[in-house]
Amino acid sequence: MCPFKVVNTNINFSTKGEIEFVDLSNTVQEAVAAANMKTGIVHVFAPHATGILLLTENDDALLNDIKVFLEELAPRHKNYSHPSNAHAHLRSALFQPDRTLPLINGNVEFGTWQSLLFVETDVYPRKRTVIIQVIGETE
Amino acid sequence: MCPFKVVNTNINFSTKGEIEFVDLSNTVQEAVAAANMKTGIVHVFAPHATGILLLTENDDALLNDIKVFLEELAPRHKNYSHPSNAHAHLRSALFQPDRTLPLINGNVEFGTWQSLLFVETDVYPRKRTVIIQVIGETE
Amino acid sequence: MCPFKVVNTNINFSTKGEIEFVDLSNTVQEAVAAANMKTGIVHVFAPHATGILLLTENDDALLNDIKVFLEELAPRHKNYSHPSNAHAHLRSALFQPDRTLPLINGNVEFGTWQSLLFVETDVYPRKRTVIIQVIGETE
Repeated sequence: MCPFKVVNTNINFSTKGEIEFVDLSNTVQEAVAAANMKTGIVHVFAPHATGILLLTENDDALLNDIKVFLEELAPRHKNYSHPSNAHAHLRSALFQPDRTLPLINGNVEFGTWQSLLFVETDVYPRKRTVIIQVIGETE
Repeated sequence: MCPFKVVNTNINFSTKGEIEFVDLSNTVQEAVAAANMKTGIVHVFAPHATGILLLTENDDALLNDIKVFLEELAPRHKNYSHPSNAHAHLRSALFQPDRTLPLINGNVEFGTWQSLLFVETDVYPRKRTVIIQVIGETE
Repeated sequence: MCPFKVVNTNINFSTKGEIEFVDLSNTVQEAVAAANMKTGIVHVFAPHATGILLLTENDDALLNDIKVFLEELAPRHKNYSHPSNAHAHLRSALFQPDRTLPLINGNVEFGTWQSLLFVETDVYPRKRTVIIQVIGETE
């Protein structure tokens, strides 16, 4: 029997709009535990053009700095071609919505100061889906 | 028999130089269909130091905004150390040329407004290769 | 027997602090050779909130341009909420510490001008770990 498998989990949540941070670190660890997987990778993907997956420290002061950083890199009020939410798209394009994490001995190997956050960049409340794929060995 | 496999596909195309967008979304779906794969991931990689793989909405107005964004983040005319195309390298470094996509029930799970684009950042026409790897279960 | 496997390698090194580049390209090729793997992917992950994994050309002049680019995108001296090293976190958030590379015929398919670099963004010397995972077929 092949001890290799893929286990997919979709998680759904609502956001309040620009800018909100949703910590997915525990959700990812739970998906790995539910899949009973030992070694491999965890691929996390947000199927959205105005959302970001971000590895960083989950510290309120730092998240405030990241919010300001996003606003400065792609300001909301500027002369864009795309109507209404171009800045939300530019922020998502710059930071991207796909990340891959190592799974070793049954745990996702986040660093001590590292969390996985979804960042809402769109301008109004949205229903969001994140796909978590655990790929690897069960033994 | 192990239902797990890796299927590699190279695609080749020419670009006209700075800045050109090439939509690879259908090409990626076709590589998955040709590989007859059901569940796993699709890893897409551009082996180039002046190219980008980008998940975003393929909308002409937005692509124009992204072009301006690239020009503002790393302007062409500036005092760089690297000769001739430093700005092309900086844009590629900031956006990066590797992306991973979820494959579920035989389809790459792009979001409704999400496409995968290759972005040429170099200053003259180039011949480009993109490697598409389908990794997962055939059943 | 299933010819699929995952082989994990941790590498450890010291950095001198902001900004240092450590070329991991040969290390990654050696990990693949030691794992005796033929086809698949190599996932590289830095479990750090103030480090970057970057695909770019390893050219001294260009690395100097990238250093200036990092300093301009997230200046060290600015009014941040997070104490002492917010700019180091912002740089790591913008460039991210996870990359995935194609493994084909026993070699990582770097482009001609492409290297994988770890970039230290923290402000003082650090001990760093990078996780290299080779995932794929042995035959």
